[in-house]
Amino acid sequence: MLVSIIMGSDSDLPVMQQAADILAQLGIAYEMTIVSAHRTPERLFRFARQAHERGVAVVVAGAGGAAHLPGMVASLSPLPVIGVPIKSSNSIDGWDSVLSILQMPAGVPVATVALNGAKNAGILAAQILSVSDTELQNRLIAYKQQLSDEVMRKVALWQEKAENS
Amino acid sequence: MLVSIIMGSDSDLPVMQQAADILAQLGIAYEMTIVSAHRTPERLFRFARQAHERGVAVVVAGAGGAAHLPGMVASLSPLPVIGVPIKSSNSIDGWDSVLSILQMPAGVPVATVALNGAKNAGILAAQILSVSDTELQNRLIAYKQQLSDEVMRKVALWQEKAENS
Amino acid sequence: MLVSIIMGSDSDLPVMQQAADILAQLGIAYEMTIVSAHRTPERLFRFARQAHERGVAVVVAGAGGAAHLPGMVASLSPLPVIGVPIKSSNSIDGWDSVLSILQMPAGVPVATVALNGAKNAGILAAQILSVSDTELQNRLIAYKQQLSDEVMRKVALWQEKAENS
Amino acid sequence: MLVSIIMGSDSDLPVMQQAADILAQLGIAYEMTIVSAHRTPERLFRFARQAHERGVAVVVAGAGGAAHLPGMVASLSPLPVIGVPIKSSNSIDGWDSVLSILQMPAGVPVATVALNGAKNAGILAAQILSVSDTELQNRLIAYKQQLSDEVMRKVALWQEKAENS
Amino acid sequence: MLVSIIMGSDSDLPVMQQAADILAQLGIAYEMTIVSAHRTPERLFRFARQAHERGVAVVVAGAGGAAHLPGMVASLSPLPVIGVPIKSSNSIDGWDSVLSILQMPAGVPVATVALNGAKNAGILAAQILSVSDTELQNRLIAYKQQLSDEVMRKVALWQEKAENS
Amino acid sequence: MLVSIIMGSDSDLPVMQQAADILAQLGIAYEMTIVSAHRTPERLFRFARQAHERGVAVVVAGAGGAAHLPGMVASLSPLPVIGVPIKSSNSIDGWDSVLSILQMPAGVPVATVALNGAKNAGILAAQILSVSDTELQNRLIAYKQQLSDEVMRKVALWQEKAENS
Amino acid sequence: MLVSIIMGSDSDLPVMQQAADILAQLGIAYEMTIVSAHRTPERLFRFARQAHERGVAVVVAGAGGAAHLPGMVASLSPLPVIGVPIKSSNSIDGWDSVLSILQMPAGVPVATVALNGAKNAGILAAQILSVSDTELQNRLIAYKQQLSDEVMRKVALWQEKAENS
Amino acid sequence: MLVSIIMGSDSDLPVMQQAADILAQLGIAYEMTIVSAHRTPERLFRFARQAHERGVAVVVAGAGGAAHLPGMVASLSPLPVIGVPIKSSNSIDGWDSVLSILQMPAGVPVATVALNGAKNAGILAAQILSVSDTELQNRLIAYKQQLSDEVMRKVALWQEKAENS
Repeated sequence: MLVSIIMGSDSDLPVMQQAADILAQLGIAYEMTIVSAHRTPERLFRFARQAHERGVAVVVAGAGGAAHLPGMVASLSPLPVIGVPIKSSNSIDGWDSVLSILQMPAGVPVATVALNGAKNAGILAAQILSVSDTELQNRLIAYKQQLSDEVMRKVALWQEKAENS
Repeated sequence: MLVSIIMGSDSDLPVMQQAADILAQLGIAYEMTIVSAHRTPERLFRFARQAHERGVAVVVAGAGGAAHLPGMVASLSPLPVIGVPIKSSNSIDGWDSVLSILQMPAGVPVATVALNGAKNAGILAAQILSVSDTELQNRLIAYKQQLSDEVMRKVALWQEKAENS
Repeated sequence: MLVSIIMGSDSDLPVMQQAADILAQLGIAYEMTIVSAHRTPERLFRFARQAHERGVAVVVAGAGGAAHLPGMVASLSPLPVIGVPIKSSNSIDGWDSVLSILQMPAGVPVATVALNGAKNAGILAAQILSVSDTELQNRLIAYKQQLSDEVMRKVALWQEKAENS
Repeated sequence: MLVSIIMGSDSDLPVMQQAADILAQLGIAYEMTIVSAHRTPERLFRFARQAHERGVAVVVAGAGGAAHLPGMVASLSPLPVIGVPIKSSNSIDGWDSVLSILQMPAGVPVATVALNGAKNAGILAAQILSVSDTELQNRLIAYKQQLSDEVMRKVALWQEKAENS
Repeated sequence: MLVSIIMGSDSDLPVMQQAADILAQLGIAYEMTIVSAHRTPERLFRFARQAHERGVAVVVAGAGGAAHLPGMVASLSPLPVIGVPIKSSNSIDGWDSVLSILQMPAGVPVATVALNGAKNAGILAAQILSVSDTELQNRLIAYKQQLSDEVMRKVALWQEKAENS
Repeated sequence: MLVSIIMGSDSDLPVMQQAADILAQLGIAYEMTIVSAHRTPERLFRFARQAHERGVAVVVAGAGGAAHLPGMVASLSPLPVIGVPIKSSNSIDGWDSVLSILQMPAGVPVATVALNGAKNAGILAAQILSVSDTELQNRLIAYKQQLSDEVMRKVALWQEKAENS
Repeated sequence: MLVSIIMGSDSDLPVMQQAADILAQLGIAYEMTIVSAHRTPERLFRFARQAHERGVAVVVAGAGGAAHLPGMVASLSPLPVIGVPIKSSNSIDGWDSVLSILQMPAGVPVATVALNGAKNAGILAAQILSVSDTELQNRLIAYKQQLSDEVMRKVALWQEKAENS
Repeated sequence: MLVSIIMGSDSDLPVMQQAADILAQLGIAYEMTIVSAHRTPERLFRFARQAHERGVAVVVAGAGGAAHLPGMVASLSPLPVIGVPIKSSNSIDGWDSVLSILQMPAGVPVATVALNGAKNAGILAAQILSVSDTELQNRLIAYKQQLSDEVMRKVALWQEKAENS
């Protein structure tokens, strides 16, 4: 089962790479490519119509400004679509991409994550796959433990420093 | 030459009818139908790809929330597309539809009018057609004069009232 | 596999019921209860720590204002968590619940849907379950077709009316 | 037929030049000058009253802050007016120029494009002229193809890189 | 010396009447009429160019949406101009009129008051006239005293009630 | 007659100096000092209660964040008070100072200018003084002419350049 | 030890009464009166300067629009001041009162609660008093338990209903 | 009596250190550590349940983005909790942290201070402790005097400079 990471423009790569990185870290197969809703609409159609037939299980779609990519894939595909609002240049502080991804009409959801939150999109994709994959769920539990451990290491460090000062 | 008025849902009709009404008043042929970007994406594709071949000269597209209809038509059609942001229920004060119509990326413009501004969308469509139609331009000049006359009638009324009081 | 629908307050029920209804319509088992992050934090902890062990596959969590429920469940559980921002009274136009659900830090995603978008939360939960359930995916494809059919019926109706007028 | 590009201040030139560039690229005649609604109101009046008599077909007007230039030209001229909101220094994140251009009252539309979206204003002007110019419409279709081709080149490049890694 | 109260539309009268009422109460002469920047631009020009020659000392201008009236009068007249943002229907929560009146460029100020703050516009006009009219300044001091007295009466009432309960 | 320029903090000086400069340029006497509503409330009271007795005719007050200085002076003094919202560090994009200066309750106006608009505050102060000073009004008319001349010089320059290219 | 509840206008009473009610319920002495920063500034000064000498331990101050009351009391008094932003008519959706209470400069804090959150202001006042009053802290713990119990009663009710259906 | 300063991440330290510094300056004991609501929820629970038993009197909690830390501590502890919204990277201009801390539901207050306002959080904590500590109240009165003195020194400096120029 494959996660497909798509983005509206190659300028979105620095953000979207974080989705790829966390998926790699969690041992999940992914592909990554550009699909522009506004410049390659036919490609968008083909991609979205065929994804579930190609073995894609989850789509992670990032876009900025009037971000139509996640919503249009959700319109065309039965797959769960995760939308990553990207704060592009000339964005109005990111509000445009957040709202044009989040505020989908009844019937066609997009699972929206935080502004520039591609890492979380990757984790969410993993969580979705883990619904039928206990082993993956265990890796996610371990990942959560790691997040906690990192904090606890810093807590200990601070305490040590405080005691020595 | 035809103006095509489309909207994402029949609940948009009370607003979008105003585009039809002003076009009728200005003697411009129009069609009006529903094209949902999210529920009928294939219809959207067909509509947008074929509109200019069917004699449509301008598209007026209204939508609310994460409003992708105007931008996707603009993506697929060489025609000028006028976007009408609609303040639907569950909208975040209209900001969602305004921003998802307005903030199109470089290369694919949508001519956005005010929130619920369907009447202005109709007038703008007429102005676009008038570029090569002097007679229509004259009707638009007359329409502007009418707007002014209405104000002046009220001005006179107020003055009269003020003098009599 | 169970979808667990939780909400911060019983005043959220009119919105959250829509998640239950669409799940029922799609033939998916669900439970629905109140878990208040701020008034029953222990219950929140227990719920979130045990959900995946009880056979819950997806959590749908709705909350208004400073909405911490979805994010705290996501913090405590390995399951995918869908957040529904609710426009409660005294909300600042819904911005508070949208932002406090959406803007989760790296490591702990919440799949956020539109303001009051509980129906979409239900559909998204179904899409997540369908990743390993082809039959359910087919039902979702059929559901999408239904959405399209409804629009097309209205399109036909409008056309008929236009021709008769 | 001429496109007239005007702006409220010479500090708007870096943005507005993009409208000129795309028009040049599309082989459309244009003029470009400064018309300040607030510092040269008489010039604004003369410009707007006479533009359609001088052979101007479309006006592209850029302004920042409390941006009155596009709306005042639209008030005085029968021509279609395209408004470009500009994010000037001391702007409140661009909201001021966006809203003072977009939210025109019924009767007097301004075709608003994205914040700093001068390139799109140029393309929109071309689309408007193309309504009665099939040859120009073909150039716009070609331009759209070019946008798509550029994306596809990057898609191929990424794929190649992925295969080699 | 005359205060001229103008507004973009007769629908603004319920708000703008409050400016007239407080001026009447303070014994200051005023006129009140409609001047629409977008529907009667010539009238706007004439009004603004001649106001200071007609004995007008202060202009109070109210408008909603993309509110250009106050700023355009300020552009054309040397007089102090007080702008009243009006929350009209289809306004985006009043932000549009507030920002298009407030955010004037350097060189052309508009003295902006609160959303729908016509009463304050009238008081501000009186304060401006009082700069060279000690008697009027005394009336303003008395007015302030009145505001205070009204509060103090309520304070006493509450205290009485509290003591009797 | 004196204009008093006050500000909440010496960090506001770079902005507020522009009010002083334009007043100097227009030949109007001014004083400039710090009055902090939050750190020197007693000084604020004394300043505001006595200003009109000391020959101050207009107060220009600049402040950032939760900007209470202009409103509190307006509460205590019968003089017209011009408020300059300042975008300080830690401001929420300037919205805080704009709204806490603009949105005064009925009875106590503050003449608000644009964010960081101290120059316009100075011009507005001059306009207020000019109500009873024809000579000053003439200087303001000349100033407006200058603004226009500067634009026209640039217009000519651009035209020349265009003709030579 | 006394909690002093003040508000800028008697129209704020329906909201502010909730602070009084919860204090009464928790057995804490309070007074409640009107202090208007803008209409009774002298009273504000006297109130704020003397409160801590009169035995007041905490001030709860509610105000709407450009809400200066909480901040000015905080400026004048050493006591902890709790600010309640009130969504008054003509408020810009409550943003004005929220920001003008919250965004206080360094040195002068106001403990801000949610829009219209007077009940929470009362509870916060109680928490502040409980810092040196174990018995009160116990009552607050009991109050929290009550909140939880109410939710648990509804949980049980829902479960019962679900089982019977 | 101890003030406990906690923060969601060590990246919040540069802001939160200001709370520690002012507490140190006022002679108040504090501890400072990391408690992450989303990465160490168990630690959050333990911390919040035990704080009042460990002698903590006030909690100061800083967090950015979807900031749940202050609200969850307030949910679990009877102590007064001061929330510091932090403008982290990828924040939507700080609105997310402000709203997710401020807009707590009835029953569970968080005393919110300005964006990045950790210094004020420290002062507020001191004010809370001073309710039962007259000596500390006197230090706070002295601190206020200092703030005033600093302003007055600058006032004198400016006056001197003005007189010498």
